Amino acid sequence: MTIVLTPLEKIPLIQAGDNLGEIIWRSLQMTEVNLEGGDILVVAQKIISKSEGRMVNLSTVTPSKRAYQLAKETEKDARLIELVLMESGDVLRTRPGTIIVEHKLGFVCANAGIDRSNILQDPECEDESVLLLPVNPDESAEKLRRSLETYSGVRVGVLVIDSHGRAWRMGVVGTTIGLSGLPGLEDLRGQADLFGETLKITQVACADELAAGASLLMGQAGEGTPVVHVRGFPYRLREAAFDELVRPRDMDLFR
Amino acid sequence: MTIVLTPLEKIPLIQAGDNLGEIIWRSLQMTEVNLEGGDILVVAQKIISKSEGRMVNLSTVTPSKRAYQLAKETEKDARLIELVLMESGDVLRTRPGTIIVEHKLGFVCANAGIDRSNILQDPECEDESVLLLPVNPDESAEKLRRSLETYSGVRVGVLVIDSHGRAWRMGVVGTTIGLSGLPGLEDLRGQADLFGETLKITQVACADELAAGASLLMGQAGEGTPVVHVRGFPYRLREAAFDELVRPRDMDLFR
Repeated sequence: MTIVLTPLEKIPLIQAGDNLGEIIWRSLQMTEVNLEGGDILVVAQKIISKSEGRMVNLSTVTPSKRAYQLAKETEKDARLIELVLMESGDVLRTRPGTIIVEHKLGFVCANAGIDRSNILQDPECEDESVLLLPVNPDESAEKLRRSLETYSGVRVGVLVIDSHGRAWRMGVVGTTIGLSGLPGLEDLRGQADLFGETLKITQVACADELAAGASLLMGQAGEGTPVVHVRGFPYRLREAAFDELVRPRDMDLFR
Repeated sequence: MTIVLTPLEKIPLIQAGDNLGEIIWRSLQMTEVNLEGGDILVVAQKIISKSEGRMVNLSTVTPSKRAYQLAKETEKDARLIELVLMESGDVLRTRPGTIIVEHKLGFVCANAGIDRSNILQDPECEDESVLLLPVNPDESAEKLRRSLETYSGVRVGVLVIDSHGRAWRMGVVGTTIGLSGLPGLEDLRGQADLFGETLKITQVACADELAAGASLLMGQAGEGTPVVHVRGFPYRLREAAFDELVRPRDMDLFR
C-alpha cells in the first residue's frame, strides 16, 4: 500500500515536434524503472506545450483595445494580455501584477497558464517568447498514454499538471489540467465510515492530490525533472476526462 | 531522489487523553519503518482532535440568534452553526447545505472544519457529537514531533492535515492546517531557471503538496490510516509556522 514517486532522469530539452512518448520511454529505461500495469506518469505541461509548438513570440501579437486597457490595469505587456484573452473565457480579477481568468479549458488560473520561465529565448529576436498551454491536455495525455502502452504492453495512466495559485493560500501547487486513464475525482458517497455511518458527500480530487505530490519532485526552477513515475496510486484506474474536476458555474460561490 | 509514502498500520481508534506520540511510535515499529533524520509524519487532524478531547455533543450547545438565522439559510442544525461561528472569524459565503468561513486559525474552509464522520456516537445520548479542529495545530504538531524525536533520536517533521474543498474545482484535497519542523512555503525567488533567467516570483506551497500526496493513502471513508510516513521530501527541513501558508487579506482577491 506504499506510493513511490520517482523523477525520471535525463529528459532532454524538448523542442517542437519531439516525440514525447519515445523520449519518456527512453528515460524510463535510463532511470531503471520497468513500467507495470497501474503505474502513472505525471508530466509537466511545459514539455507537452513545447513538443506541440505552443511557443509564441510576442512580436507576432497585435493587442486589441481591451488588451491595452487590461495591460494598464495589470501593468503587464499588452501583447501578453492579448494572448491571455485569446486563451480565456472570462477575466475574473485584475490588479497590478495579476490577472486571474477562467481558461477556455475550464479551470481558473493566473495569466491563462502562459509561461515565461524555462523558455529558451531566440537570440536573433529581440522580443520575448512565451509558452501557451497545450490546446487539449486530455488529448495530449491520451496520445502519450497510447504511446507508452504500446512500448510497455501494460495499462498506465497519464496526468498533465501545471502549477496553480490558490484563492486564500500562499504558494503554488501542482494541479491537474489534463488526464488519461485515471480518475480525476473519486466519489465516496454512500460508502460507510469507520463506524458504519453512511458518508453524506465526499468526493476526493485524487488526480489533484497526485499532481501536488508528484510536483514536489519537479521543483519550479532549474531542476529539469518534468516527468515523475508513480507506483501505488490507490484508486482504481478508469477512463475519465479532466472536466470532472471543474466546479460547474452554478455550484461556484467564488467566481 | 525518490519520495516514498507509507501508511502506518494498526493505529487504534483514538480517544481523549491518548498519547499519540507513543501510539505512532509503536505503529512505526509494527509497520517496520525505522525513522531516519529528515523523515516526515503526515497526520490527519481527526486523530489529534480526538486525543485532545475536541468532541462536542450538540445537546450542550445553545444557538445564538445569528446561528438560527444562518441555520435557516444553510439548512443546517443551529447548534452546529453556533459551533462554526465560535470557531470562525468571518462567514464568507452561505447557501443551502454550505457555509464557508475564515477559521480563527486563518484558513478558509467549509463548516470551520467541524467533522461529523468517523465520530463514535454515544448510544446513551440521543444528540449527535461532532469534532472540532485542534485548538492550535502547530502546537499539536510540535508536541508530537518532540515525542517522536525523543523516541527516535533523529530530526523529523510533522504535518497536520485536513481535507478542504477548493473555490473553483470539485473534490476535496489534503491540505495543511499545522506543521512543525518543515517549511510550509519554499521561496524560489531569485533562483535561476533552466536557461539562467532569474525567476520573478515563485513560491511553492511544499507542505500543501505533501499534504495532498499523503492524503491519497488516508482515504476519506473507513480506511483507518490516519498517519503516513514520508521519506525523501526534497526541501530542507526548517522551523516554520502554519501561517506562512495563509494569504494575507490585502493580497486576497476572492475573500
